[in-house]
Amino acid sequence: MLSNVPGMPRSARAPITGPAAATVFTTVLTEGPVSRVDVARRTGLSSAAVTKAARPFIEAGYLEELASGGRTAPGAGRPANPLAIRPDREYFVGVKITGDDLIGVVTDLRADVRASARHALTGHDVGHVVRALADLAGELLSDPGVRDRAFCVGVAVSGDVDRVSGVVRYSPFLGWRDVPLAELLQDATGLTTTLENDVKALAVAEKWFGEGVGASTFALVTVGAGIGSALVVDGRVLRGAYGVAGEIGHVPVAEGPACSCGGQGCVEAIASGEAILTRARQVTGEPALSMADAVTRARGGDEPLREVFAAAGHAIGLGLAALVNLFGPERVVVSGEGVATYDLFEEQIRRTFEVHAFGSAARCRLAVRPLPFEEWARGAAAVAIQGLFAADRG
Amino acid sequence: MLSNVPGMPRSARAPITGPAAATVFTTVLTEGPVSRVDVARRTGLSSAAVTKAARPFIEAGYLEELASGGRTAPGAGRPANPLAIRPDREYFVGVKITGDDLIGVVTDLRADVRASARHALTGHDVGHVVRALADLAGELLSDPGVRDRAFCVGVAVSGDVDRVSGVVRYSPFLGWRDVPLAELLQDATGLTTTLENDVKALAVAEKWFGEGVGASTFALVTVGAGIGSALVVDGRVLRGAYGVAGEIGHVPVAEGPACSCGGQGCVEAIASGEAILTRARQVTGEPALSMADAVTRARGGDEPLREVFAAAGHAIGLGLAALVNLFGPERVVVSGEGVATYDLFEEQIRRTFEVHAFGSAARCRLAVRPLPFEEWARGAAAVAIQGLFAADRG
Ligand SMILES: [Zn+2]
Ligand SMILES: [Zn+2]
Repeated sequence: MLSNVPGMPRSARAPITGPAAATVFTTVLTEGPVSRVDVARRTGLSSAAVTKAARPFIEAGYLEELASGGRTAPGAGRPANPLAIRPDREYFVGVKITGDDLIGVVTDLRADVRASARHALTGHDVGHVVRALADLAGELLSDPGVRDRAFCVGVAVSGDVDRVSGVVRYSPFLGWRDVPLAELLQDATGLTTTLENDVKALAVAEKWFGEGVGASTFALVTVGAGIGSALVVDGRVLRGAYGVAGEIGHVPVAEGPACSCGGQGCVEAIASGEAILTRARQVTGEPALSMADAVTRARGGDEPLREVFAAAGHAIGLGLAALVNLFGPERVVVSGEGVATYDLFEEQIRRTFEVHAFGSAARCRLAVRPLPFEEWARGAAAVAIQGLFAADRG
Repeated sequence: MLSNVPGMPRSARAPITGPAAATVFTTVLTEGPVSRVDVARRTGLSSAAVTKAARPFIEAGYLEELASGGRTAPGAGRPANPLAIRPDREYFVGVKITGDDLIGVVTDLRADVRASARHALTGHDVGHVVRALADLAGELLSDPGVRDRAFCVGVAVSGDVDRVSGVVRYSPFLGWRDVPLAELLQDATGLTTTLENDVKALAVAEKWFGEGVGASTFALVTVGAGIGSALVVDGRVLRGAYGVAGEIGHVPVAEGPACSCGGQGCVEAIASGEAILTRARQVTGEPALSMADAVTRARGGDEPLREVFAAAGHAIGLGLAALVNLFGPERVVVSGEGVATYDLFEEQIRRTFEVHAFGSAARCRLAVRPLPFEEWARGAAAVAIQGLFAADRG
């Protein structure tokens, strides 16, 4: 995964040449500043192997050694001196594609957002989307000081995405099948392009830079138009032997209603935004009821509408219990646009989860976080960062 | 995890000194005979690293090099010559503890059973069980040629087992809490003792020597008095951050009935042996109906009884769908004493699974296998073999 940008020598990119180098760099990236002694202890590598792996990164400007007081120390010196990332050494573009627009960010090596921008999509034609993506990347990299240090873009899209081949296999809301988006965007921008499913991309960002730091097993659940999750084991997102994993939205938790997947009683068939609105219109007998009105009236104490949200919370709680009882994560983060109305779900989610979590699995921490759209784009940038040194992972 | 048997020099045991050695040995153990070139290709190690890792095993008699025709070749020679395990180099004792008896086996390095024996338990007093375990091990190792090459025993028990500390935290059917069984048995027998949850032990055996060979993700589901599962990712059994994982028996799939765990509508509350019998007595109005009679009459066409088994199959199918949609295994093996009556469940299990498996997750292969009790003991032996070179894994 070293750079193949025309005219860009390989030495301009992170000098990562093997598993020890990737392990050392990841440890400093996600847990640094950290001394070589501590890197050795945490990774099981010898002190000599850590020193050897760190040296090319220091020489290429990706890592630096701090004196014990936090100042920069010259050269690769004492093993107790902390190693730290130099976040500005390289920048990354991350873009989330929604049905309506593109949300883009530029981040540094630590996935801290430096700039963001948004372009409306006027259609879902592949050529149009690729041009819009290239325009957005150009705008985000208009500053030459940034552009000269940006070589990679990550793109997050919901649906069935083959990261390895860079193909969008199926995106329902774009109406795409088997679109080689990575190749098209790479040709259009000259940037090395990594595609990822949006929930998995977000899980990578959470694992490295968010709630997942330090957790060996970890799950991210997103609640909104759809309900998805990504499960992380030892830093890897489970992908499923047949490309399906983390489909908490299609865990069966009731006898009905029918789900778009062909199943019955899936979490998503009860708790997706659309399912909630459909049910809210049924219970009120108002076929034109809007989601905003349903939310306002439920917050105002409308009991039948409150029960629709509680039923959704119950279904999500059952799905979380299935996930936690089977998978045993240390933490679960619940996020997504549905979190904006989380006050209407949360109590029931937690109550149902507590009843159905098996034994000490109930100790699993459920963290609830809002999710601005820029956060999805940051996830895409994290995937691009990951592409630096972990082409086979994810 | 090298030998600490009194009077036994460390060199008598497998000379495993690091991750490369463990990787090479495991590859030859589970996939051999295999050439050094192929070991290198499969593990990502260099050819030189494979040769270096293999040499001490050859010298200690655990591995041998075959000439291309399959004969033994002298020394560590050509990289294309296959490496093979010498199965008789070391023997292992495996014991499964049930409420009624101890089932024990002696296996070779490949977990092939060489001898088996069974002792009845007359009580669940810890001292009694430890003495019975030591007697059984003594009987299994009565042949001096076997005893001189046996250093380790694996013990499988259902319930909450802490493998690392060797403590049975909670075993409902033995009535034990926090029993340091590994230490007690080690003192009684002089054998290095590894404890494991019985389903996880069986998953280790399946992963290395059964249906799981070659599958990167894999699940074992056991159906019987209880319903359990073990999930294997990259050769490791998921253990759960709080000690709970694979609890398919406590995935909620219906609104009721109440489960012993405090939840509602768990798979086990509908499909365990006891749940089926309770329901069969309800639908027939015969409070003394035996399981054997219920099975006979269902096989004979008794519709209400057939529906009881079908409802159990439906609950198991829903649990399997939750497992597969979340975890995405390449294969699932369904086994356990319940498999003896699997003809009454299977059609409904498969039908429900097919309806609820999400998209290409339906391609996951469900294999159904009977499970003689000796197989559980063999799983315990596999855990002892694993203790040779993977003390931190499982
Ligand atoms: Zn569904
Ligand atoms: Zn239960």
